[in-house]
Amino acid sequence: MAGTGAREISVYRVNAAGGSRQQPDYVAVEEPLDIQIGYSDGARQSRTVSITMRTPGEDRELAVGFLFTEGILRTPSQVAAVLAGRNSVRVELQPDVTVDWPSIERHVYTSSSCGVCGKTSIDAVRAQCGATLDEGLRVRADVIARLPALLRASQPAFEATGGLHAAALFQADGELLAVREDVGRHNALDKLIGARFLGDQLPLADCIVMVSGRASFELVQKAATAGVPVLAAVGAPSSLAVELAYDSGMTLAGFVREGGFNVYSAPFRILNDSKI
Amino acid sequence: MAGTGAREISVYRVNAAGGSRQQPDYVAVEEPLDIQIGYSDGARQSRTVSITMRTPGEDRELAVGFLFTEGILRTPSQVAAVLAGRNSVRVELQPDVTVDWPSIERHVYTSSSCGVCGKTSIDAVRAQCGATLDEGLRVRADVIARLPALLRASQPAFEATGGLHAAALFQADGELLAVREDVGRHNALDKLIGARFLGDQLPLADCIVMVSGRASFELVQKAATAGVPVLAAVGAPSSLAVELAYDSGMTLAGFVREGGFNVYSAPFRILNDSKI
Repeated sequence: MAGTGAREISVYRVNAAGGSRQQPDYVAVEEPLDIQIGYSDGARQSRTVSITMRTPGEDRELAVGFLFTEGILRTPSQVAAVLAGRNSVRVELQPDVTVDWPSIERHVYTSSSCGVCGKTSIDAVRAQCGATLDEGLRVRADVIARLPALLRASQPAFEATGGLHAAALFQADGELLAVREDVGRHNALDKLIGARFLGDQLPLADCIVMVSGRASFELVQKAATAGVPVLAAVGAPSSLAVELAYDSGMTLAGFVREGGFNVYSAPFRILNDSKI
Repeated sequence: MAGTGAREISVYRVNAAGGSRQQPDYVAVEEPLDIQIGYSDGARQSRTVSITMRTPGEDRELAVGFLFTEGILRTPSQVAAVLAGRNSVRVELQPDVTVDWPSIERHVYTSSSCGVCGKTSIDAVRAQCGATLDEGLRVRADVIARLPALLRASQPAFEATGGLHAAALFQADGELLAVREDVGRHNALDKLIGARFLGDQLPLADCIVMVSGRASFELVQKAATAGVPVLAAVGAPSSLAVELAYDSGMTLAGFVREGGFNVYSAPFRILNDSKI
């Protein structure tokens, strides 16, 4: 019922008018993941790049997705192995891949819920997102409007807990390709992107990404790094999310509902003609 | 109308059935804040502890609140001055206050949306939250159930943007003491706690904190550090939020609605008798 992202607990259900009872319920699982970089030769020590609070599951995808969207990894050929433990993942690099540790240390010198996890300056982030997004994709407005219902239908653990975010990958015609859930939206997106990274299926030039909740700067940055041309969110975008989407030529849709939505940037990719 | 946390932009409002028009709208402002620690004597250099994406406003409170809830500051007497720039705050310490930089570096070696911003191990977090919470407070169930309506009524920028989280401080009788808004829930809570820290009004032993959205581990950790005995959330808690609340003896309420709510830990503080 609840999926692997949920855990059964006992709660006191309190009725404001008086009375309470103990009953079973489900909560979204949140546990730390230690993301490490190392080498298979053992000559160089493994080091922690980030400890992130995540919902267990697809930890390997999360780790490589994070390292890719944070600009530390560029291509799957740099990776020799991805080894997952209980609450840790060790990404082993090919011997000739060097890591600029001082840069990573400056880089992760930040922490934020809706923000730049791992940057010391906005300029650095903008630079990383500099890749041009594909301008060929077109998506029908009625397809965008249907995405939240499709996303919700594919979220088993959210149904049970009400506490999980999701990120989903859709084709331009609304066909669901993949969905990932997590207590953190940014983790759900990293899991989604990480799976494609490991399959050497990036950039996501002909796809739509849909996220539950709001669209922060960080989500736009991660999506742009993966080459996503259309990002749709159930909730509101932030000012910096709109700015970065505009700067990178990404189509950003917010408040997506059955009846319609807002487009904040690059509206040319949206086909809106009921006669199509 | 929109408050300082909102910015006017132009959006394309798309109707899924066909047609679109350009119209003005508001988005929640998100900008980076560089939180630095320094000394007034100038002999020691200022250093960045964190760059967080936040909604501008109450930056001084956010900076000291962050440093307090992350365990870097203990008392307001350690602070000589708090100097705010456009997107930076420099917290100047008294000359005799020493900072364990290697520990902070390990400590901020993380990044997460719903997580432990700034910890290398869960044990360290639990240790920091070890202070015993006050057990004297009692709150009526109907007061808890009213908090979301009171919170919403005091959120001007959320009304305009739909994109801001809030954290509010209430007395046990439901009287609103303070409210802060931010794109990040953790920032809203740090602003709230930071204001009390600067006023030397911690711990918050006789208060309720109400947050919009979900309750993550990080929010419980920050509230526990400030001595908050009752934390209420509009949304769902995570598994680790429930565990930490249980371990620290905090009363954690979730899914708070007009008709009732769930209590996940320490239910003894909730008085639920309609005849009271």
